Amino acid sequence: MLPAPMLDDWLRAALQEDLGTGDVTTEILVPSSLRGRAEVSAKEPFIVAGIDVALRTFVLLSKEVSAPSKAEDGHAVEAGSVLLELEGPVRALLGGERVALNILQHLSGVATLTRKFVDAVAGTGVKILDTRKTLPGLRGLEKYAVRTGGGVNHRSSLSEGILVKENHISACGGIAQAVNAIRGKSPHTLRVEVEATTLEEVEEALAAGVDAILLDNMSIETIRESVARVHGATQLEVSGGVTLENVCKIAQTGVDAISVGRITHSAPGVDISMLLRNG
Amino acid sequence: MLPAPMLDDWLRAALQEDLGTGDVTTEILVPSSLRGRAEVSAKEPFIVAGIDVALRTFVLLSKEVSAPSKAEDGHAVEAGSVLLELEGPVRALLGGERVALNILQHLSGVATLTRKFVDAVAGTGVKILDTRKTLPGLRGLEKYAVRTGGGVNHRSSLSEGILVKENHISACGGIAQAVNAIRGKSPHTLRVEVEATTLEEVEEALAAGVDAILLDNMSIETIRESVARVHGATQLEVSGGVTLENVCKIAQTGVDAISVGRITHSAPGVDISMLLRNG
Amino acid sequence: MLPAPMLDDWLRAALQEDLGTGDVTTEILVPSSLRGRAEVSAKEPFIVAGIDVALRTFVLLSKEVSAPSKAEDGHAVEAGSVLLELEGPVRALLGGERVALNILQHLSGVATLTRKFVDAVAGTGVKILDTRKTLPGLRGLEKYAVRTGGGVNHRSSLSEGILVKENHISACGGIAQAVNAIRGKSPHTLRVEVEATTLEEVEEALAAGVDAILLDNMSIETIRESVARVHGATQLEVSGGVTLENVCKIAQTGVDAISVGRITHSAPGVDISMLLRNG
Amino acid sequence: MLPAPMLDDWLRAALQEDLGTGDVTTEILVPSSLRGRAEVSAKEPFIVAGIDVALRTFVLLSKEVSAPSKAEDGHAVEAGSVLLELEGPVRALLGGERVALNILQHLSGVATLTRKFVDAVAGTGVKILDTRKTLPGLRGLEKYAVRTGGGVNHRSSLSEGILVKENHISACGGIAQAVNAIRGKSPHTLRVEVEATTLEEVEEALAAGVDAILLDNMSIETIRESVARVHGATQLEVSGGVTLENVCKIAQTGVDAISVGRITHSAPGVDISMLLRNG
Amino acid sequence: MLPAPMLDDWLRAALQEDLGTGDVTTEILVPSSLRGRAEVSAKEPFIVAGIDVALRTFVLLSKEVSAPSKAEDGHAVEAGSVLLELEGPVRALLGGERVALNILQHLSGVATLTRKFVDAVAGTGVKILDTRKTLPGLRGLEKYAVRTGGGVNHRSSLSEGILVKENHISACGGIAQAVNAIRGKSPHTLRVEVEATTLEEVEEALAAGVDAILLDNMSIETIRESVARVHGATQLEVSGGVTLENVCKIAQTGVDAISVGRITHSAPGVDISMLLRNG
Amino acid sequence: MLPAPMLDDWLRAALQEDLGTGDVTTEILVPSSLRGRAEVSAKEPFIVAGIDVALRTFVLLSKEVSAPSKAEDGHAVEAGSVLLELEGPVRALLGGERVALNILQHLSGVATLTRKFVDAVAGTGVKILDTRKTLPGLRGLEKYAVRTGGGVNHRSSLSEGILVKENHISACGGIAQAVNAIRGKSPHTLRVEVEATTLEEVEEALAAGVDAILLDNMSIETIRESVARVHGATQLEVSGGVTLENVCKIAQTGVDAISVGRITHSAPGVDISMLLRNG
Repeated sequence: MLPAPMLDDWLRAALQEDLGTGDVTTEILVPSSLRGRAEVSAKEPFIVAGIDVALRTFVLLSKEVSAPSKAEDGHAVEAGSVLLELEGPVRALLGGERVALNILQHLSGVATLTRKFVDAVAGTGVKILDTRKTLPGLRGLEKYAVRTGGGVNHRSSLSEGILVKENHISACGGIAQAVNAIRGKSPHTLRVEVEATTLEEVEEALAAGVDAILLDNMSIETIRESVARVHGATQLEVSGGVTLENVCKIAQTGVDAISVGRITHSAPGVDISMLLRNG
Repeated sequence: MLPAPMLDDWLRAALQEDLGTGDVTTEILVPSSLRGRAEVSAKEPFIVAGIDVALRTFVLLSKEVSAPSKAEDGHAVEAGSVLLELEGPVRALLGGERVALNILQHLSGVATLTRKFVDAVAGTGVKILDTRKTLPGLRGLEKYAVRTGGGVNHRSSLSEGILVKENHISACGGIAQAVNAIRGKSPHTLRVEVEATTLEEVEEALAAGVDAILLDNMSIETIRESVARVHGATQLEVSGGVTLENVCKIAQTGVDAISVGRITHSAPGVDISMLLRNG
Repeated sequence: MLPAPMLDDWLRAALQEDLGTGDVTTEILVPSSLRGRAEVSAKEPFIVAGIDVALRTFVLLSKEVSAPSKAEDGHAVEAGSVLLELEGPVRALLGGERVALNILQHLSGVATLTRKFVDAVAGTGVKILDTRKTLPGLRGLEKYAVRTGGGVNHRSSLSEGILVKENHISACGGIAQAVNAIRGKSPHTLRVEVEATTLEEVEEALAAGVDAILLDNMSIETIRESVARVHGATQLEVSGGVTLENVCKIAQTGVDAISVGRITHSAPGVDISMLLRNG
Repeated sequence: MLPAPMLDDWLRAALQEDLGTGDVTTEILVPSSLRGRAEVSAKEPFIVAGIDVALRTFVLLSKEVSAPSKAEDGHAVEAGSVLLELEGPVRALLGGERVALNILQHLSGVATLTRKFVDAVAGTGVKILDTRKTLPGLRGLEKYAVRTGGGVNHRSSLSEGILVKENHISACGGIAQAVNAIRGKSPHTLRVEVEATTLEEVEEALAAGVDAILLDNMSIETIRESVARVHGATQLEVSGGVTLENVCKIAQTGVDAISVGRITHSAPGVDISMLLRNG
Repeated sequence: MLPAPMLDDWLRAALQEDLGTGDVTTEILVPSSLRGRAEVSAKEPFIVAGIDVALRTFVLLSKEVSAPSKAEDGHAVEAGSVLLELEGPVRALLGGERVALNILQHLSGVATLTRKFVDAVAGTGVKILDTRKTLPGLRGLEKYAVRTGGGVNHRSSLSEGILVKENHISACGGIAQAVNAIRGKSPHTLRVEVEATTLEEVEEALAAGVDAILLDNMSIETIRESVARVHGATQLEVSGGVTLENVCKIAQTGVDAISVGRITHSAPGVDISMLLRNG
Repeated sequence: MLPAPMLDDWLRAALQEDLGTGDVTTEILVPSSLRGRAEVSAKEPFIVAGIDVALRTFVLLSKEVSAPSKAEDGHAVEAGSVLLELEGPVRALLGGERVALNILQHLSGVATLTRKFVDAVAGTGVKILDTRKTLPGLRGLEKYAVRTGGGVNHRSSLSEGILVKENHISACGGIAQAVNAIRGKSPHTLRVEVEATTLEEVEEALAAGVDAILLDNMSIETIRESVARVHGATQLEVSGGVTLENVCKIAQTGVDAISVGRITHSAPGVDISMLLRNG
């Protein structure tokens, strides 16, 4: 997931956002000594992601919060399943509730939608990839949720992969020139991927010896023809307009990977609630 | 929106997340002196929100980026509408593209869904409210998008409103006791709202003289009966299970406001793209 | 007080300010293994505020610091009273001394002055409120000290309350127009308060149906007349030129609350010292 | 003052504290295009400190704010004097008002009280020093205000001076041993000062060849006798219980400097107000 | 280099480190209105790197600083060459001097040493790579200096490349198993490189179909034999004990790249000075 | 060293730099439950510095990491000496390895080079000082390493010492004028040091009564003559062009201290490796 110290910084900022200058209602009504138990439960079926992040939220408010039981990320739960049993000071349970649930409902939403795409291409060997179409500040966690749902990550930032797009190509005078320029200078550990929108570009990229070709917004037929021409010589990734309806058909063309923006930018939050039982 | 200095800090963090240690592809292929133009366009109809935030993203990368034209937040656009024309160093245009679009597609998504709920209750005088079910780190911007869509904000943090929930009530021994405790201590500028799930609780809250009652997960009949009993003596807000299908029926009961979690936590991103034309 | 993670960040910054690049004297003269005890004591009578913040200061420097005994916030102490007994590495005791005492002397100063105003209006039922006239960076703690002294907080930031001042009114064309504009757009949980400097404005605000009226810099007579005209229909707050000498007279007019800037911006620090006894 | 980039960071934090999630009242009532003028004026006589900091506060909210005229730090003003004329977007003027005034009233308060002590020892050649008894987060600015008032700074942090106190001495077995240990290890650029509470300690420190001796809480007679014995061989500083009443008498003993905690921790804020005139 | 907003943050921290609470000497002796010119010059021959970073340092202290002329990164300079002519407030020139020179002398040192290695393998087509043996906080800039010197970057962080080392292999039961595990899960854009210390491991890695093999601490003979066996089927990188003396011999074995830790962790600073000419 | 909370912040930033968005290789190949042992060893003889910082690096990644044994800062080790034995989760051991070793190799490099200079002047009583020629972000740790190697720190920042250089002198019209201006205003705890490049300047500084004179880039003869003229009346420091070859000769002139830039800016990293043994 996120390296531990960075996760804590992120969670502290999230808590600060929700607490503002303090939870006035609770501070007036709930004595600091009151301890209680709480249950975080699913109200619909989904794939869980983010349990440890949610738990950590409460712990950052009080080290006395513990979790007698918790669900496991990547597992499917039913409506009514208990995701997290908590025990500790009631002020910390109430103070962390909204942030923890906001995280859990979103990450589980991403994992659940990812799983649907993964299941839709089951048996084809095709990987479901995410994109950089993520919500600002949430990329690391969303990419974790994608992995939890069975997807594979595309690059996490512009420094974690070479992707030569149309804009770059036109600035260099052609795919061959661009790939050539890249080759002498790009970091040793990064693959070189080139975007192609036509069969000609696929051929050019192939000739330039790239590590992967991104088939962007192509018709199924063109994708199929690309697969035929490339014939395993390089990785093929499809992107653009992928839905649960058409993903299987795309997968059956024989490409290696399909990237789907909506698993991060449009995954609906799952329904989760927390019930508190005082001391 | 966000106060300017805070917005810049937030955008810098978003850029850092996307740039990682730098945009290797672009730095190799695009000379720093190359200038160009870009157009950000809608690929479906929606309500725009976040234009200035998107523009600021590019400017933080280079003060030489300017916007010859831009759409206005709150306006409805069609597929094909140009949202933002940009001019400046190509490196800055490419470097800011993904972050700017991620923001714009999400905020416009929130504004668009909010507008649908607002339209659904048009004529009833009922306010559509947001909740604290927002994505961590995005609350301020999402709440701005809600306003842009015609909604009204509920509290932005636990310090910006008193809301006495069941958990608080049980910790105090009753609504009357809770409200009493609050009254002597709560900040001068905050209303006191109490959650009620039954008519008895509505009566209790009314007797305690609260500023607003939150009718949580009640049936339409109970809501209607609550309206009758309260008879304008205090504000009434409905929450829980509100959808585009049932929101109008709820509004027609005569309550003052309806809060809807999904306008922030489950608004699908709208479809936007950026096309670059080098100098 | 401040939510725990934010308090720690704030204290770390305070320690960094005082330690600079390190406590050179102590690092040369005191071995890191040396343990000792220290007593923080009052040198004059006052109301204590900030004990836990002071203690936390030392703990952030070394988790081995403990406090065998400590005074309670809100209590009155005499000259000579021990506020905090400490035990731990001498380097941590000396390294945290100045920051801890600076906090304690200021917060106790605020609580003590607040208590004097609260005592001065005892029996009238009037609340003593603070203002936003606080020292930059210290607002959350100063507002805590005000509560500790028996005061009630006004808004903690511009987002935690609506207060329509003269400047706003003139920009809108009148109190009625301003209140009207506010009503459709202001956050659901915030009261609407309007500043009035004349009886006419009090009447206008009353007619507009505001939640509270701030009587600014009025004479006792005008305040009294305002109370008579409002007759309990809305909250009345007085501000401007309030001193320990005149606060009781103001309270006796029958207003609900009196806000006092000097309890935060001009409270003299109380006299506190720390005595160390090595191992 | 503070180095420019650090000052901006500090001011941004102060603005964030005051703005919270935004100035709701102003955003609803004041159009973003409205421009206006404002005057910040003194309501009592004092020594000005912090004008540029106050001005910078507004500029951080909008680069369009300018100051047609401003008072100069260190000058004495009368009730009614205009400290700062401002021009710019009304939202920025209102949004920065409280923070700017809070800074100005506090720093001017510190400068004014410092000047009183400086004036009280006029003609004696004695320096008035500040201490580390400052408000957390405000040290750099408070020390600037002290200089503005005519005082001289003592160390700004524990790394900016060697001061061997009783606690250190007892940990080392005596002044001679402490000074010896210091001498081989302390940074090249720092003076070595030792605290003394008796004449014997003064003699010991003198013999050890220190750069300065801090006469702590001594009677006037003992101070006078210390001056006689030291006879100019090292700097002498007095601290403890210094007031406007006794500071001149202390100065007349012939010491070099007198440090006064209250000029920073207990300086009352001066009275300042801002009046706005819309465009 | 570093994305602009991150570079500014880094420089501000560097300035804060050097300025502490302020440049006392200069603030006392140099009036804020005094303007001057300064020349930053080389005192020995080297390859320049970091000119824009150095210049930015001064600009962050005062926007009035400009550079009438400056050297270009990557160029060789002689003793006496002027690297940077500066003009602006003397306080800013003196305040930024040390930080700017510290950066320039280190980055130029890295570029200069890199260039020596690059020159030593000239004609072989072998790339000189850096490593993660960089100074904490300086990686991005040091990697820029490596590129400036003609080197190519290895991964900039653990998320920017897959490198399976002995420790990983032993945890998985063999190279084949490790590569297999990686293949289904590693980010789409990253190459898979495996460390090998024997010919057997080279064969295993080759069979597993990796993108690159890191020949770690092998003798020239074993490297040569590895080249023969791999025969262009995958990239070969050498690391361990590489010096200016042996690098050419290694390059002549026919490997693709050689990584050298000392170009970042042990590059001596070059000799640079700044001369100021007031007004 | 660095005050504990600041050190942790610094280490977290260093870890973030090296981990990027996460250690992908290790997260895929090493199960989070796997525990192991590791040994950090010297591969050449050197003076150790930074052991506790290195250990803390691992602990920040996992509180379960412990160190059964560790070397002591300031001690000389041989090739093969174990510096640190570690035990804990393998992910934390691998995740912290590079950062910890980068710190240790640099700080030990600084301490080792410092010790060589200290040894070269052994018996002369002369102090070896560092300078502000440090790597940005590393000053506090490098200055600690200098002390560990037996050196003494010069000022750590511009606020921790007065040093009047040529630029300052020319701005004031002479040494006497500069020292005079300083004397009335400089912080009480700071020595006043003046740079001199000729005997005339030495005389001027002496006459002005400074605490120390920095003999900058003087010949041995001029240094010797300066010592003769000053005759113990003030501290004498030499700087400029100091090497291991000439430092002893300089020391024998009788000056008090010699400052050496290269011990921080050009100390080669020492050779250290970490070997891991799973379970």
